[in-house]
Amino acid sequence: MINLKTAENIPYDRVRAVQWEDDRLSLIDQRLLPSQTVTVAFEHLPECIRAIRDMVVRGAPAIGITAAYAVVLAARDRHRADPAGWRRALLPDLEQLAAARPTAVNLRWAVDRMRHIVESATDADPVARLLAEARHIHAADIAANHRMGGLGMALIEPGSGVLTHCNTGALATGGYGTALGVVRAGVAAGRIGQVFADETRPWLQGARLTAWELVQEGIAVTLIVDGAAAQLMRQGRVRWVIVGADRIAANGDTANKIGTYGLAVSARYHGVKFMVVAPRSSIDMAVASGADIPIESRDPAEVLSYAGTRTAADGAHAWNPAFDVTPAELIDAIVTEAGVVRAPTTTAMHALMGL
Amino acid sequence: MINLKTAENIPYDRVRAVQWEDDRLSLIDQRLLPSQTVTVAFEHLPECIRAIRDMVVRGAPAIGITAAYAVVLAARDRHRADPAGWRRALLPDLEQLAAARPTAVNLRWAVDRMRHIVESATDADPVARLLAEARHIHAADIAANHRMGGLGMALIEPGSGVLTHCNTGALATGGYGTALGVVRAGVAAGRIGQVFADETRPWLQGARLTAWELVQEGIAVTLIVDGAAAQLMRQGRVRWVIVGADRIAANGDTANKIGTYGLAVSARYHGVKFMVVAPRSSIDMAVASGADIPIESRDPAEVLSYAGTRTAADGAHAWNPAFDVTPAELIDAIVTEAGVVRAPTTTAMHALMGL
Repeated sequence: MINLKTAENIPYDRVRAVQWEDDRLSLIDQRLLPSQTVTVAFEHLPECIRAIRDMVVRGAPAIGITAAYAVVLAARDRHRADPAGWRRALLPDLEQLAAARPTAVNLRWAVDRMRHIVESATDADPVARLLAEARHIHAADIAANHRMGGLGMALIEPGSGVLTHCNTGALATGGYGTALGVVRAGVAAGRIGQVFADETRPWLQGARLTAWELVQEGIAVTLIVDGAAAQLMRQGRVRWVIVGADRIAANGDTANKIGTYGLAVSARYHGVKFMVVAPRSSIDMAVASGADIPIESRDPAEVLSYAGTRTAADGAHAWNPAFDVTPAELIDAIVTEAGVVRAPTTTAMHALMGL
Repeated sequence: MINLKTAENIPYDRVRAVQWEDDRLSLIDQRLLPSQTVTVAFEHLPECIRAIRDMVVRGAPAIGITAAYAVVLAARDRHRADPAGWRRALLPDLEQLAAARPTAVNLRWAVDRMRHIVESATDADPVARLLAEARHIHAADIAANHRMGGLGMALIEPGSGVLTHCNTGALATGGYGTALGVVRAGVAAGRIGQVFADETRPWLQGARLTAWELVQEGIAVTLIVDGAAAQLMRQGRVRWVIVGADRIAANGDTANKIGTYGLAVSARYHGVKFMVVAPRSSIDMAVASGADIPIESRDPAEVLSYAGTRTAADGAHAWNPAFDVTPAELIDAIVTEAGVVRAPTTTAMHALMGL
């Protein structure tokens, strides 16, 4: 890992959480935002796996794109070491990479995409073909986000207040964002009048990342503590809750950042609409329902401390699931680059996926 | 203000958030817990008002008891300055004190109780009579809490998991606690098998105070981020949510720490029972419903920062209501020292209050 640069106030149109430059993968270290903007370069697979696990990079699509570039790095090392046997050496690397985090299906999706190229590439120069595929995955993600921005925005009544959770913007994707892409598009079109964001404990992605992105964009954002969302809805201040997804099951059940499910329960109680925005790479048709989505449990210290300082009393335990599952019946619309599924069902999801 | 002492690891049975000793009011500075246990002494009214406003002391019953002792200090100063005209000078002091925080009705209740003594006391030695009344308010609160502990505990099925919010223990009251008193009693009786506590942003009263009290008591506590409560309920891990109250309206609507209302919505959705535990001094029969309870808005900086460190991007706004209102229809039981009201209504609340 090499610290490439430290830059304050990178404007949004230059924000790229994941980038390939100078034959290396570079990631913004999102753990340090918003107080520091540090970009770190990676040349080898083990560091990339650690970066995914330790949340240097986070957000399901961004993790997928990172993994695609990480396969390029791994293949380059294996090919340099053994130009004839690189492929056999690489396959266990791919498995290790795919297992770095369990919930976001984009990680395995991207590794599978890259594996197809590994299997079909010649021994002459596999790296160029793999890099082309990774670049394609990255560019397609950005294009998908812009498409979803338009589709999702069109569902929102002009002048609406909206609430989002976690970070689903440029930092969580190849660029532009999923749920936050809808927010950007909706604000630009005048359909969204006010943007609220949950701070999203324990990692504070809303306070640290979403607020940072929106401030860069000149979009006013009002943060709330996660516990205030129900009261906000009771006051009639939001018409839509707009969130991303880490994995969507075949029936539309959606795993997303912890706190999402409670928002969906509260939205239904208050007659507020609930929108999930995610590319088809987040949909896992191999999983019948949310009950089969593995939910990552993270270190209790994330709840008991903040920024390295212990806040809870010594001796306290913590339960720290990183995600929860929102059942399809609480979701009004799933927005993908291939279209919108309203009131999702297994049949509708199959149709969306062209199955 | 004088720093009286700094003591680590005060055992619970010695925890008194509010105390009268050496002719002064002493308060544990709850902003510093759990890393430091600092007791601060107060001799004059203005410092007491500041301590209430700045949350050196918090928790509706503890605020009420603090106010009672603060009236003693104010009367002493006024009487020393003018033994004949002390009463007239004191009345504006009482108004200022009652306005220190708007939501917890125990503050005004205690000031009104003390005003009656002010009005009836002779000019010879009003301080002794006022101190006796303040001590009585304090002792009665502790007795009420023990009574509520028994009544609330009896509602809970043996071996239940429970979830509590904010801090309602010895630190929030005269001693023992309201909702946390029920937890103590329920654990002691084997009715409560597992205790979960919301960390309770933005002030982290759950992580900092409730966990600290329970650890002192030897009661295992598992903290969750506020956003994880719905998922905890979905997994069937809690049968009761048990909370305190800052003010209960005549129809049973209950103002309590922000986040309470969302818990009530989620509890109802999951078939989890919802219990409010509060002394009758928290019930305001002059207020017909929750719509008429004033809700304090606090500094946005409390949301934009975490444990004193700025976390949100510069330029972000925040909405920071300190309380929300849970409508009576979401409450299964209100537990007071005078009895339990199930499925509260205005009629039932009138009966409870002997009206």
